[in-house]
Amino acid sequence: MSGYWNKRTAGISPYVPGEQPRDRKFIKLNTNENPYPPSPKVIAAMEEVLAAGERLRLYPDPLCTTFREAVASAYGVKPSQVFPGNGSDEVLAFAFGAFFESESAGPVLFPDITYSFYPVYTRLWDIPYRTIPLQEDFSIGLDEYSALAENTGGVVIANPNAPTGHALSSSGLLLLARKLEKNRRLLIVDEAYAAFGAESLVPHIADHPNLLTVHTLSKSASLAGLRAGFAIGREELIEGLFRVRDSFNSYTMDTLALAGGSAAVLDKPYYDGINQKVIATRERTAAALLAMGFTVIPSKANFLFISPPNISGPGLFQALRERGILVRHFNKPRITGYLRVSIGTEEDMDAFLAACKEIVKRERSNFTFKPDTENKVWE
Amino acid sequence: MSGYWNKRTAGISPYVPGEQPRDRKFIKLNTNENPYPPSPKVIAAMEEVLAAGERLRLYPDPLCTTFREAVASAYGVKPSQVFPGNGSDEVLAFAFGAFFESESAGPVLFPDITYSFYPVYTRLWDIPYRTIPLQEDFSIGLDEYSALAENTGGVVIANPNAPTGHALSSSGLLLLARKLEKNRRLLIVDEAYAAFGAESLVPHIADHPNLLTVHTLSKSASLAGLRAGFAIGREELIEGLFRVRDSFNSYTMDTLALAGGSAAVLDKPYYDGINQKVIATRERTAAALLAMGFTVIPSKANFLFISPPNISGPGLFQALRERGILVRHFNKPRITGYLRVSIGTEEDMDAFLAACKEIVKRERSNFTFKPDTENKVWE
Repeated sequence: MSGYWNKRTAGISPYVPGEQPRDRKFIKLNTNENPYPPSPKVIAAMEEVLAAGERLRLYPDPLCTTFREAVASAYGVKPSQVFPGNGSDEVLAFAFGAFFESESAGPVLFPDITYSFYPVYTRLWDIPYRTIPLQEDFSIGLDEYSALAENTGGVVIANPNAPTGHALSSSGLLLLARKLEKNRRLLIVDEAYAAFGAESLVPHIADHPNLLTVHTLSKSASLAGLRAGFAIGREELIEGLFRVRDSFNSYTMDTLALAGGSAAVLDKPYYDGINQKVIATRERTAAALLAMGFTVIPSKANFLFISPPNISGPGLFQALRERGILVRHFNKPRITGYLRVSIGTEEDMDAFLAACKEIVKRERSNFTFKPDTENKVWE
Repeated sequence: MSGYWNKRTAGISPYVPGEQPRDRKFIKLNTNENPYPPSPKVIAAMEEVLAAGERLRLYPDPLCTTFREAVASAYGVKPSQVFPGNGSDEVLAFAFGAFFESESAGPVLFPDITYSFYPVYTRLWDIPYRTIPLQEDFSIGLDEYSALAENTGGVVIANPNAPTGHALSSSGLLLLARKLEKNRRLLIVDEAYAAFGAESLVPHIADHPNLLTVHTLSKSASLAGLRAGFAIGREELIEGLFRVRDSFNSYTMDTLALAGGSAAVLDKPYYDGINQKVIATRERTAAALLAMGFTVIPSKANFLFISPPNISGPGLFQALRERGILVRHFNKPRITGYLRVSIGTEEDMDAFLAACKEIVKRERSNFTFKPDTENKVWE
């Protein structure tokens, strides 16, 4: 706390990202990175920029024309329907700042268990919000959002949801969009993980003026280190995002990210290949964990949300860490018994499964039930 | 205008950056880029990242440790006194959002003629502001700021100022800092152009808890295309900036920018060399323009603010553009007779001076005085 911080700075609770260990000794399954390298075409495009050192002395194209054209061509939309950004977190920050009101519009709705950056954005921009509990099976019940559609400032849904991996069908989301449209309220669908098995709503943006989909190259394009993301929506939404961006920083994407990002969205064959491998590894891992007695939420993302049979969430987290495996635990009441485990290579997951087997077996021999404490898990 | 924009989006007036022509036929003297390429060490550091494609699939270090250590070592401060960002525009956006209040703190002060992003930030964050007119010679008169120190929300000064190039001595700014400190108000000094001849206030941050200096790699490090900047100040200010950043986007600098930016701040010999060339070219250009009858504001930056003897600002802008030379004109009452001209290579400036000579000579034969219109210039 400082006498120089303003009310905003004193009042916010920043997002805490997953640990990025500076030594590389860990099997890193904690921040949903893709285990496979980016496309060689991406690297080649950036090497070309570096070879012409001249290009870095000049500002990038603030309109990000080549990148937006590449996204438009890959997704079957117009470049004017694409908003580029320095990662999807930034795109979401601009979307919250551009469309949700601080006053008199009703609270923005999102699930109680979802990407934990959403409530952080609302505090940054002073937006009222209300969380809707996930259903018992950790799925999102859209009926409750529909029932509140007339009194909400907007809705934000991650599809698939994080950290659960649960995915919704497009039909339910489109019904909600139509309902919100009657009061001119926005539906933001965060499709960060959609490439791993969910239905994208991008084909429907032309029919829904209040639908904004948000995308990242961090997961499915294996470019977390490059910082590139985008939103797709009707032109007036994209224009609103540009107005806020251009009141903040005119050049959010650098020349290298524009070149690499364009090459990435255009190399569908390569990325379909690696992401199919991730999906196959996910299914195999889920089956093995179920066989060991874990609870496993059905996932359409590049991670699994799991609860061990006889050890607490933090206990398993710590035991894995001691064995050189990093996963993510969220210290929230309803999910404290769970861990989110990113899908790594086949070898990563073999090591993870072997460690789980050993830990669960050891715990089975030591296990004593501790009521009201860490052993309590949802189910 | 859209029914989905909130009050902020409808009410802001975004910053308009200088033109970035997509064809390269222009001599580009309009956005203060460095005419010389970045250090070969910068390119090598980024090539090394690309060669290990693996690194881009992982998130960057959110604390930007290596970059902050490099800045700290180059500037003689601690890494904890360095805030990293995706260009200094972003750093400034966070600073306005972190330290200036929307209510009850008095208006933030900056000159009427300065970097035109400052009023844009105030509208983004809903901060009251007041502009203080530059003095007749386009210098900043600090007395007026000191007189208002008790009733201001803070002060923002670019040193050297843009688009004038005028620089202040550190002693005057430090006196103002001390005066503002009594009411716990911040002084932000934007040192984007300081490497071209102004005194930096960085050596004084330890003595001034309310002093934040802001820096960019776009100009003096010839890396406008990379997006890297930073602020230097006492730890509690840096911590405040991180709080706002981490409520917006945890990974603003990508892995390539961290590597390239670190190499840049550490290669002082290379950059001193190219920036000394820029300074020498600036002095020669200024002398040549004065000899042609131009008004030239004494500059400590990598640009000149000039007014032609017998043609309007927009007239000269257009005549230069027709000859393939891009400069910048600001359509503001007091400076409409002026152009801001970035310092290019010796060859760029020879071409610019030759074009000016020809245009001014032609105008001298055609010149008719048009009262109340474009020919009206300051002075």
